[in-house]
Amino acid sequence: APGNEDGEVTTGKSIYMVSDGTGWTVEHAVNAALGQFEHCLVDRGCPVNTHLFSGIDDVERLMEIVKQAAKEGAMLVYTLADPSMAESARQACKLWGIPSTDVLGPITEAVASHLGVSPSGLPRGAPGRKFPLSEEYFKRIEAIEFTIKQDDGALPQNLHKAEIVLAGVSRTGKTPLSIYLSQKGYKVANVPIVIGVELPDTLFEVEPEKVFGLTINPVVLHTIRKARAKSLGFCEEIRSNYSEMDHVRAELEFAGKIFAQNPAWPVIEVTGKAIEETAAVVLRLYHDRKHKCSMPRISKRY
Amino acid sequence: APGNEDGEVTTGKSIYMVSDGTGWTVEHAVNAALGQFEHCLVDRGCPVNTHLFSGIDDVERLMEIVKQAAKEGAMLVYTLADPSMAESARQACKLWGIPSTDVLGPITEAVASHLGVSPSGLPRGAPGRKFPLSEEYFKRIEAIEFTIKQDDGALPQNLHKAEIVLAGVSRTGKTPLSIYLSQKGYKVANVPIVIGVELPDTLFEVEPEKVFGLTINPVVLHTIRKARAKSLGFCEEIRSNYSEMDHVRAELEFAGKIFAQNPAWPVIEVTGKAIEETAAVVLRLYHDRKHKCSMPRISKRY
Ligand SMILES: Nc1ncnc2c1ncn2[C@@H]1O[C@H](COP(=O)(O)O)[C@@H](O)[C@H]1O
Ligand SMILES: Nc1ncnc2c1ncn2[C@@H]1O[C@H](COP(=O)(O)O)[C@@H](O)[C@H]1O
Ligand SMILES: [Mg+2]
Ligand SMILES: [Mg+2]
Repeated sequence: APGNEDGEVTTGKSIYMVSDGTGWTVEHAVNAALGQFEHCLVDRGCPVNTHLFSGIDDVERLMEIVKQAAKEGAMLVYTLADPSMAESARQACKLWGIPSTDVLGPITEAVASHLGVSPSGLPRGAPGRKFPLSEEYFKRIEAIEFTIKQDDGALPQNLHKAEIVLAGVSRTGKTPLSIYLSQKGYKVANVPIVIGVELPDTLFEVEPEKVFGLTINPVVLHTIRKARAKSLGFCEEIRSNYSEMDHVRAELEFAGKIFAQNPAWPVIEVTGKAIEETAAVVLRLYHDRKHKCSMPRISKRY
Repeated sequence: APGNEDGEVTTGKSIYMVSDGTGWTVEHAVNAALGQFEHCLVDRGCPVNTHLFSGIDDVERLMEIVKQAAKEGAMLVYTLADPSMAESARQACKLWGIPSTDVLGPITEAVASHLGVSPSGLPRGAPGRKFPLSEEYFKRIEAIEFTIKQDDGALPQNLHKAEIVLAGVSRTGKTPLSIYLSQKGYKVANVPIVIGVELPDTLFEVEPEKVFGLTINPVVLHTIRKARAKSLGFCEEIRSNYSEMDHVRAELEFAGKIFAQNPAWPVIEVTGKAIEETAAVVLRLYHDRKHKCSMPRISKRY
C-alpha cells in the first residue's frame, strides 16, 4: 500500500537495508519478514519505511549510514560479503545501540562448513571477479524475449516451442505470470479464453502436460475488471460486456468447460494469490510431472 | 552453469531449501550465499545441488524432508513463519546432525522488537489471511503490460508515458532490463540504436532525466552477437553485418555520439553486469535524481 502521506512522511519506524551488491536479497528478506506484520502496517496505523542503500563497499559510507540510522532510530539489515565490513557493521550498530541483522553471514558460514570451502569474501561486482556469459544467462534472456512475443495469444503457431502454456480468461494474471516465469528461465506462452472467440488448434495439439488453466472467483474477477475498464477508459458498451457480472460468470463457465474437456491440464485457482504464489504452484506441478520424484521439489545444479 | 551431468547427477553437496510459502526468499538468499563460492562450484569440480521444497506447512512433510536431507547428507535452509514449525525444523536438524539455517526467524524477531509488535506467525497463503488487491499490486501489473508493449522501440508516441527510457544498441540487454524494472513497478520503454536508422523525435522530447544510455565493451558485444546470430540462424550476409567487429565498433561509436549530444542522459556500462546489477544502478540514479537525498537511497512505505 502506498501509504497515507498527510505531510507525515517521517512518521513510522524505519528499516535501513544495506548491501555491497544490488540490495535485492536484503530487500526480498525484509519484505518476507514484513509479511509477518501485515496486521499493523500502514493501513493499520503502524507504518514502516524501508531505505535501501546498495553498492556500499567501503567502510566510510557504511559508517555514515549507521550514524544516520542511529539519528533516525532505525534498525539495520545487511548483506556484506567482506567479513571485515560485516564485522564493522555489527560493531558499529552495537556501539550506537541499533538493532541489526546479518542476512548473508549465517548462510554463508553454514554453506562454507557444509562444503568444506572458504567463502571468497568478495562482493559481487568486485574487481577480481569476472562475469561468465553462461549458458544459463543466455537461456534466461531468450526465455524473456520468447515470452514477450507470445503474449496475449500472439503467434499460436509457436505454442509447441513453449515450455509452459497458460490459458485463462482476461484478468486472471496470465501476462504478469508469464513474465515472472520467463525470468526464471522458462519459455512461456499465454492464450486468452474469450467467449465467442475460437481457441487456436495448436493449443490442443501441444503436450497437455505443459498447459495450465487459470481460474478465479467471479466476484473478485468482476471487481478487477471494473477497475480495469475504468482505467482503460472503455466506452459504456464494451465496458458492460467486459465487466458485467453475468458476462464474467458466463466467460468463467465457458473456460471451465474447456478445462473439463482437457482433464490433463491442471487448473489453478488464482483468487487471492500474488503472481509469485501462482508461479510457485505452476512450477511445483511442472517439475513434479517432469521428474516424478517421490518428494516434490525443484532442483538445480550450481 | 548447467553442470556436467556425466551420469554423476548425484555427486556434489546438496542444499535443501524449505518454505511454507513460495520458496523464492530462501532461494534468493541461498543464491547470494553461493555467489561466495563461485571459485569452487560445478565448473571447478565442486558442484552443489539445491532442492527447493515450497508450500511446506505441516510438520509431517517437514520431518520427511529433514530425514531425506539426513540420508543425502544435505544441509537445510528454511523460512517457516509458524514459530513451532521453525522450532521443529531446528530441533530435528540438530537431532539428525544436519547443519541448518533459519532465514526468516532472525529478521522477523529483530523487526518485532523494533516495532514493538508480535509477528502473526501465519505463513503467506494461510487461511486466515485475506489478500488485498492493493493499488501497488495493480500498478505493478500495469507497469509490466506497458513495458511489454513498448519493447524494442514500439509505440514511440508513448515514450512520454514511460518513467524510465533505455537506449542502446542491440544486445546491451535493454529487453530483460526493461522487464526486470517493470516487475518492480516502473513503466519502462526501450529504444534500439541502430546505425542508419533514425531515432524517434520523441526520445529527444521527453525529460532527459528519465533516459538512460547503455553501453558495452565492443569485444564482449561481438561475442554475444556472434552467439545470437548463430542461434537465430541469420544468413551469412545479415550475420556478418550484425556481428562483425568493425560494424560492432561503428555502432557503439554511433551510440556514443548520441549520448555525447545528450549529456543529461547517464550512460551505464553493462559489461560484465548481470541484469539485476544494471537494474540496481539505474534505480539508484533514478531515485537520487528524483529525491536529491544527501544519502542516496531507495525508500518505500509499508
Ligand atoms: N555472484 C555473486 N558473487 C559474489 N557475491 C555475490 C553474488 N551475488 C550476490 N553476492 C553477495 O550477496 C549479497 C547480496 O547480493 P545483492 O542481492 O546483490 O545485494 C551481497 O553481499 C553480494 O555481494
Ligand atoms: N505477505 C506475507 N504474509 C505473511 N507471510 C509472508 C508473506 N510473504 C512471505 N511470507 C513468509 O515469508 C517466508 C518467505 O516467503 P516465500 O518467499 O514465499 O517463501 C515464508 O515463511 C512466508 O510464509
Ligand atoms: Mg494479458
Ligand atoms: Mg530487445
